[in-house]
Amino acid sequence: MYIVIMAGGSGTRFWPASKEDYPKQFLNIISDKSLIEETFCRVKSLVKKEENIILVINQIHKEITEKIFKKHNVKIIVEPFSRNTAACIGLAAMHIKKEAGNAPFIVMPADHFIANHKAFKSILQVAANSLKDNQINTIGIVPTRPETAYGYIELGKKIARIKDITLYKVKKFVEKPDMKKAASFLYQGNHLWNTGIFAFKTNTILKEIHTFLPDLYNGLTKIENSIGTEKYDAVLKNVYEKFESVSIDYGILEKTKTSICALKGDFGWSDVGSWQSLYLLRLNEMDSSGNILDCNGLNMECKNIFVFSRSNRLITTLGLKDTLIVDMPDTLLVADINKSQDVRKIVEELKKKEKL
Amino acid sequence: MYIVIMAGGSGTRFWPASKEDYPKQFLNIISDKSLIEETFCRVKSLVKKEENIILVINQIHKEITEKIFKKHNVKIIVEPFSRNTAACIGLAAMHIKKEAGNAPFIVMPADHFIANHKAFKSILQVAANSLKDNQINTIGIVPTRPETAYGYIELGKKIARIKDITLYKVKKFVEKPDMKKAASFLYQGNHLWNTGIFAFKTNTILKEIHTFLPDLYNGLTKIENSIGTEKYDAVLKNVYEKFESVSIDYGILEKTKTSICALKGDFGWSDVGSWQSLYLLRLNEMDSSGNILDCNGLNMECKNIFVFSRSNRLITTLGLKDTLIVDMPDTLLVADINKSQDVRKIVEELKKKEKL
Repeated sequence: MYIVIMAGGSGTRFWPASKEDYPKQFLNIISDKSLIEETFCRVKSLVKKEENIILVINQIHKEITEKIFKKHNVKIIVEPFSRNTAACIGLAAMHIKKEAGNAPFIVMPADHFIANHKAFKSILQVAANSLKDNQINTIGIVPTRPETAYGYIELGKKIARIKDITLYKVKKFVEKPDMKKAASFLYQGNHLWNTGIFAFKTNTILKEIHTFLPDLYNGLTKIENSIGTEKYDAVLKNVYEKFESVSIDYGILEKTKTSICALKGDFGWSDVGSWQSLYLLRLNEMDSSGNILDCNGLNMECKNIFVFSRSNRLITTLGLKDTLIVDMPDTLLVADINKSQDVRKIVEELKKKEKL
Repeated sequence: MYIVIMAGGSGTRFWPASKEDYPKQFLNIISDKSLIEETFCRVKSLVKKEENIILVINQIHKEITEKIFKKHNVKIIVEPFSRNTAACIGLAAMHIKKEAGNAPFIVMPADHFIANHKAFKSILQVAANSLKDNQINTIGIVPTRPETAYGYIELGKKIARIKDITLYKVKKFVEKPDMKKAASFLYQGNHLWNTGIFAFKTNTILKEIHTFLPDLYNGLTKIENSIGTEKYDAVLKNVYEKFESVSIDYGILEKTKTSICALKGDFGWSDVGSWQSLYLLRLNEMDSSGNILDCNGLNMECKNIFVFSRSNRLITTLGLKDTLIVDMPDTLLVADINKSQDVRKIVEELKKKEKL
């Protein structure tokens, strides 16, 4: 079994802590470890040897990744360009196929939070072990609120129950809903949050790519032929640049006739999608007034504030409510924490004004 | 005529912009000039030569003062210790007496804001020119709100009217009132705000000091005898250390039987006593949402916020209301602007925790 950790993203949700050359997955925003290292540590006991864990990263993050993983024998695949999840998974599949033939593998994002590691590992094992040829497994999460920031999986009939875990046929993948739809999903109980964690064998997913994304498939075979040769880097760069940027969900999963199974998970999951969600995750650091103060500072009469500092400055706060303060050596963000989803608007505006 | 600008204070109201070795009067918080330079420029046309303006400063601010006034022939008197306004005024009076005998002089704080310079200079001229021996003039301001942060002057009967300015006998000086009293002062109309601006001749004030603060008087005569000799610094240091720390208001004005006149002023005055009062003073920098952004930054969806930055950082704000942000190279303050009076509590707490 292989595990592929996808770390190619370069989001702006955690600006100004995250930057293009230092995105969220490389930040130590939850613990003293970066999210990608947390993800690696969480799953490494599932594989026989560390080399069976593959990190797919972007070229610009090669140095920081090698620094974080210098003590591990993890395999690193470098994408010369960002081309979304279909290309990323295809590239990983080709490498695994070359090494191990029609092996099962699990792909997962590098930047998620998992509360219950034991339950998480247990469901991953079932997802990998229950795989048949021409089958795709995906992990869904029982919703606990009418979340409009996540995609959903609509469940069909129950297929099996393995080790406390129920498997369903997937009826369809649903894009981020509006509040009315999200509330009805919660009420109906037949929808799960789409985590972006999938399991398949190499032949299965490559066949799907062949069917639905033939250009990608052709490019991948060129790359496959160059693996292990000195031409690899040049071929990869040349071929990768031309790939269409498309997600595995949109490019394949929403179209395929192949059987997709959802495993119903309940292990405390978050995609850590905003400063506010991070604030709510770090609840064991909260004081009795709901404040999280990750800084050298002094707080007076504040309620529900989150201070995140990576400068060495003294941070003092007085009489604030529901406020986010992100203090970086070169940039300060002070925001209503309930509007932290709009941080990307600030980044857009700064780019427009050429201040970034 | 002489003008004495008292700049010995070391307040914490504008922390973290002001520090003990860099208090408010040396900050450029209203314009690109420091408050002490603003005060000097405002009054210099009232005296025949720049040397007739005397700055009384503390030893620790000598360097910064000399830097600010390097192009001016202002006279600088250095206090080796802070001993409040009675000692400060007595020391200045002795120096003036030595140079010009029984000359009139005006004393004023270095860190106030004046909107209407013409009206201000006009009232100062009347205050100095109308002085008789054994008379003290003071400038009071017509209250525009029930302010509890100021001392008041209770007016007696009208004495005279000179050039549009009415002079009253002072009935008594009133310490900072509670809200009920402040509201009644506003309602009755016979109280003025005490600005701490006074005019007297040297003999008058030294006689008062002789009567009510005899120890101070004895010390001052020792200093007087040493002025112009090489012993001056040593005598000053030795004598000054032993002076009681007492204000001119409490030590003399509240006790004297000498005639005190209040000149009724109305020229847009503020003691710039808090970040909030500074925010309200700088109204011509306010945008249509009530924000003042004195920084390199980007603001989105905020209302009534005041950003004051003296670092070179990028400051971004999102969805805030009534918020004060003071961004200094080594310290950040984020506060409810309505609680900016409590900044001193933060300073006290930081000192207690040895973080300052």
